[in-house]
Amino acid sequence: MDDWVVGVDLGATKTALGLIDPQDHIVAYRRIPTDADDGPRAVVERIARSVAELQEELPDGQRIAAMGMCSPGPVDHRTGTLIDPPNLSGLHHTPLRHMLAGRLELPVSLEHDARAAALGEFYYGAGRGERSMVYVVVGTGVGAAIIVDGQLYHGAHGSAGEIGHVTLDLDGELCSCGSRGCVETYTSGPGLVRHYQRALEREGKEHPQETGQPLTGEQVARLAGQGDALAMLVMAEAGQALGIAIASMAMLLDIDLYVVGGSVAKSGDLLLEPARRTVLRCSYPSVSSRVRIVPAPLGDDGPLLGCGWLARQAMR
Amino acid sequence: MDDWVVGVDLGATKTALGLIDPQDHIVAYRRIPTDADDGPRAVVERIARSVAELQEELPDGQRIAAMGMCSPGPVDHRTGTLIDPPNLSGLHHTPLRHMLAGRLELPVSLEHDARAAALGEFYYGAGRGERSMVYVVVGTGVGAAIIVDGQLYHGAHGSAGEIGHVTLDLDGELCSCGSRGCVETYTSGPGLVRHYQRALEREGKEHPQETGQPLTGEQVARLAGQGDALAMLVMAEAGQALGIAIASMAMLLDIDLYVVGGSVAKSGDLLLEPARRTVLRCSYPSVSSRVRIVPAPLGDDGPLLGCGWLARQAMR
Repeated sequence: MDDWVVGVDLGATKTALGLIDPQDHIVAYRRIPTDADDGPRAVVERIARSVAELQEELPDGQRIAAMGMCSPGPVDHRTGTLIDPPNLSGLHHTPLRHMLAGRLELPVSLEHDARAAALGEFYYGAGRGERSMVYVVVGTGVGAAIIVDGQLYHGAHGSAGEIGHVTLDLDGELCSCGSRGCVETYTSGPGLVRHYQRALEREGKEHPQETGQPLTGEQVARLAGQGDALAMLVMAEAGQALGIAIASMAMLLDIDLYVVGGSVAKSGDLLLEPARRTVLRCSYPSVSSRVRIVPAPLGDDGPLLGCGWLARQAMR
Repeated sequence: MDDWVVGVDLGATKTALGLIDPQDHIVAYRRIPTDADDGPRAVVERIARSVAELQEELPDGQRIAAMGMCSPGPVDHRTGTLIDPPNLSGLHHTPLRHMLAGRLELPVSLEHDARAAALGEFYYGAGRGERSMVYVVVGTGVGAAIIVDGQLYHGAHGSAGEIGHVTLDLDGELCSCGSRGCVETYTSGPGLVRHYQRALEREGKEHPQETGQPLTGEQVARLAGQGDALAMLVMAEAGQALGIAIASMAMLLDIDLYVVGGSVAKSGDLLLEPARRTVLRCSYPSVSSRVRIVPAPLGDDGPLLGCGWLARQAMR
């Protein structure tokens, strides 16, 4: 474990790199545009140049020994291939692991970003010392990464954890996935915006944004934090839907710890308190008394540290 | 594997024993009353006498080499202890495995009955050749047993698979567990009876039972099979709730095969067709196209064969 590794969080617009020391601390960052439309070679080349810059920051005689990388799903973690994530159309079906390993002459692993964040929290954050954990990401979408006895649970086809599209109301709002009443229609950033705007319309109010920018889920959360009654109601409904989803996972998986990350989750207890109350309402007392719902303490470092852990696995 | 083993399915009222040959066929049965109120010693003694009778049926020179046993949960499969299943109060906190192993001088294992049925179907029934499978029992209650890569998934505290108490409607009907709108309020035998009786009342009808016996879920299913319009509606609603539950499991677990057993499931497609249609409505096309929902072909032999498999494991 006395190796330096690099973690790479490839996002739809930006890519973050973290240089990770042998004690698993991130000691340097690089942030570059992803520009997926430039195509696989250009993206790989930009990442390779950033890795070379990070290599320059190492003490004499030390070198980066492996890379762990994550991206929005779907990802084939076994082959290290990005499949067809929306917003990264320039990189569809790219064998990223193979390309980067060849370019850098390093072991490389590739994982879904929610799963990398889960590994980060499990080994270095809220999950330290636990055997099992679920990481729930609440942002533009809602997803979960399941860790059982220290291992990621991928499912039969690598698509486990799609809690965002579990049905809460068969006759509910139409979801981007084509179904109705999914968790994501209540709890995601776009869901918060829609529900808030609808509540404003119902009350005949205008939304209190000063700029002409479109409203975001994070802003709805912020308004709730400032005491905006309608925003508080919307957050409470979102938290309730999240609570039903977590209670369902707790009853089905018998896992106790739910670490909630993602942009909307930054609102903390505004979202998590109604979720906790709902879990008390809709699971066995023996289950609800064990369930812990906590915010993800590592934030954006979570996926990078998870990638670092994957990098060390790739060296074995 | 050239050993004879015995499977024991301890039920609330009756206990079934099956003598299983080296080729995993049940070649003889015994059915005895459970009479749990007589206490642990009497129950163990009755089972031991039945095992001795089955031993008598073996070819010369052969003997029973191990026992696998199952009972309603909760069960601690690691210590082989029955915890506190309702309807078996005379056996609460009984170390059944230890007592039977001592009395019979055989290796014994104890598992939850739904999990034993799942193992039976996985190794000898609908799940042969699969890697992963979920067994869903729909009877007085609703539960699931999850098999991942050939292994039972127990969860952190042995309580995984409580799909019957996943919430479908926070404001729904009060469930025996204290929550509202659980899957079980729609899909279980007692749920079918309540919904059917309510539908009859709404229509100002009497239920078409001839005897003075109370109605059962199996009878509601039979009436639906005979074309009773209200019973068909109730079964369709129950199937829809089962479908939402299976879709949720498919999205979360990424497992394709759902084998449905239990007394209510004997109605077959009356329950399973609406479930299949619902899965198409409320999961990704990539997921719903893979999901298979099939009746459990082994019926009451399933738990016995699963116990036989466990018995062989206990010998290792």
